[in-house]
Amino acid sequence: MTYSLICTKCKTIYIKEPVYKCEKCGGIIDIEYKPDGAEFRKDNAEGVFKYSKLLPVSLDQNTSLGEGETPLIKSSFLSKETGIREVWLKNEGCNPSGSFKDRASAVAISKCRQWGMDTAVIASSGNASGSAAAYCARYNVKLVVLVPERTPENKIAQALAHDPTVVKVKGAYSNSFRMAKELAEEFGWFNITSTFINPYVREGYKTIAYELFYGLKKAPDWIIIPVGAGPIFAAVYKAFFEMKSLGLVDKIPRLVCVQAKRCSPIAGAFLNEESVNAWEGSEPTIASGINDDLNGYTEDGDYTIDCIKAFDGTAVVLEEDEILKSILQLGQEGIYAEPAGAVGAGALIKLKQEKTIKENESAVIIVTGNGLKNPQPIKDKKLPVIDSIEEFNELI
Amino acid sequence: MTYSLICTKCKTIYIKEPVYKCEKCGGIIDIEYKPDGAEFRKDNAEGVFKYSKLLPVSLDQNTSLGEGETPLIKSSFLSKETGIREVWLKNEGCNPSGSFKDRASAVAISKCRQWGMDTAVIASSGNASGSAAAYCARYNVKLVVLVPERTPENKIAQALAHDPTVVKVKGAYSNSFRMAKELAEEFGWFNITSTFINPYVREGYKTIAYELFYGLKKAPDWIIIPVGAGPIFAAVYKAFFEMKSLGLVDKIPRLVCVQAKRCSPIAGAFLNEESVNAWEGSEPTIASGINDDLNGYTEDGDYTIDCIKAFDGTAVVLEEDEILKSILQLGQEGIYAEPAGAVGAGALIKLKQEKTIKENESAVIIVTGNGLKNPQPIKDKKLPVIDSIEEFNELI
Repeated sequence: MTYSLICTKCKTIYIKEPVYKCEKCGGIIDIEYKPDGAEFRKDNAEGVFKYSKLLPVSLDQNTSLGEGETPLIKSSFLSKETGIREVWLKNEGCNPSGSFKDRASAVAISKCRQWGMDTAVIASSGNASGSAAAYCARYNVKLVVLVPERTPENKIAQALAHDPTVVKVKGAYSNSFRMAKELAEEFGWFNITSTFINPYVREGYKTIAYELFYGLKKAPDWIIIPVGAGPIFAAVYKAFFEMKSLGLVDKIPRLVCVQAKRCSPIAGAFLNEESVNAWEGSEPTIASGINDDLNGYTEDGDYTIDCIKAFDGTAVVLEEDEILKSILQLGQEGIYAEPAGAVGAGALIKLKQEKTIKENESAVIIVTGNGLKNPQPIKDKKLPVIDSIEEFNELI
Repeated sequence: MTYSLICTKCKTIYIKEPVYKCEKCGGIIDIEYKPDGAEFRKDNAEGVFKYSKLLPVSLDQNTSLGEGETPLIKSSFLSKETGIREVWLKNEGCNPSGSFKDRASAVAISKCRQWGMDTAVIASSGNASGSAAAYCARYNVKLVVLVPERTPENKIAQALAHDPTVVKVKGAYSNSFRMAKELAEEFGWFNITSTFINPYVREGYKTIAYELFYGLKKAPDWIIIPVGAGPIFAAVYKAFFEMKSLGLVDKIPRLVCVQAKRCSPIAGAFLNEESVNAWEGSEPTIASGINDDLNGYTEDGDYTIDCIKAFDGTAVVLEEDEILKSILQLGQEGIYAEPAGAVGAGALIKLKQEKTIKENESAVIIVTGNGLKNPQPIKDKKLPVIDSIEEFNELI
């Protein structure tokens, strides 16, 4: 819990807070902890604050809504389908707002309160704003949500239920992203936009990895993660790195970055051994939660690739029909996932076919978001209509 | 875990299983436990199986998806609004399928497997079928879902993701309900329709009460519960009755049954001191999860009224605008609830205004389902569109 801010590139250390990007070289800021005697997990703390030993929070600024401790289910269907004996599914859709973003919100809003900041700003029309709005409402932090002009109202119904200030910004997401930075600077608000811009946000995601260790009592061989810009990816990597430093695990899992083929600036660049460019796809993927073109922050993608490479990870891209199939595959596991949250299933199957993952290895799939957020109608399914038990008998 | 089936009316005891209604008098069947030495809560068991001491399950037929252990949040907004110092919110929307029904499914599907039954049948187009479909898929039980003919496909998208057999039945819900009974009889399938017809289903709901006791270390003064037919209501009552018998709590909380004015066969009958009749409303309530007319099973409503009266509980009915307001009130608590799940907020405010609940009493609101299931667009909210930080400044 004693920590410092450090640039991942030039290693400059910052004393003041918050710092979004290195003021010397523009590098991504990370948080480093000084080991202390605190327990790794405080059973009686709420939500992600159980892991406050490795979070930049003070327990008296607990802003939990009961996030985390999400189910870790042993796979039946995918395990049979691939022959991989040990497949686990981490169901992040059970978080209070239905996605892994709640882990970030809990940490970020805790910092707001600790610093006495009364307002946060976020550029997001998806899971991140729905989550931030819930935490801000409960813990009395004002929130300004910036969404692209063409965002349909039903997409932000969840955020609106918590009554933040929502403003539409003309043009593409990159304009909302830029304006969040400007407003944070102008008014001294906390910018909690969920990219690599805010190191505290990323720290919250680390708790997924701590829970995996706590549930499995080991580091799995593989962890498969849906990726937009990659803060969750970098966070899981960092968490295992920290646990290895503490002697809790003896290795760092190999991490798999999954993207939709229709928007794969990171996975595509990794597989083609190129550096990351802003994506220029004509048609968006149904996996809207990871439909991130990185326009204006391609360096985030490069950092995610560094994390893939650090311990011999890999990347997978999925076609749209493979994403739909992934939803049904997780359906057979009893999990209802939004398209972006489901892609790990299809990635596991691909990696087994390619013989990258072996039958005797263990793999965890992170299911990042709830299917209720973005229900996909099952097409071509004509439901029969009956009027009697005789008509039912004729069906079967 | 050693238990017997007993008629709540004529007290006939049954040895064979399953029994849906008393074969002598048609009464509702309940489950009674023989006290044994098992711990009240097994920390290392999964989901609701932590409370197997008071459930009709054997641990080797664990069919958990990580249900239960839902957040219990201390209220800020409603507590300030009413002056009631201790208000708690139990957020059942964090269950795997997004509602409290998962507790029932875990127990019911466990019984299916224990008995070697390969198929279950359910009449439901809402939360119950979405939940049952998930558990059946994961634990290899076939499921037949019966829905009224006019059910829109998007309402059953969640269930369809788990690929059960879905059949539309002509006419109103009562026809689907009747056909589920007929099919269960004809084919020997387990009827897990979520009314009072299946005592095992109801047992699962009891775990909400066990968790309240475990979280609060006491029985609260009041528990406020949204009610369709009332199995959850009867279950919470039964659970506290059992805990009192075991000496864990010293009283049974006063229970509040909340219904929408547009469909209030139980709350209305209680308040008018009448017996329950099938509801004949012309317009359905937006609280679809509790829009139950009881057509064909009004005796369920009478049983729920018995449970209200047993320990001096009461009932509240809410207008549609009060239900919408309840959603926004819970939004201020950081909880996103579906309309049926939100009604406890409005009920608390009413009961404080009526001076039924006092400032120094403790109250728990059960939020039964996730707002993502049934998002209500926030009306009359015209979002401003801006293009620059100057335009933002003009807004404020």
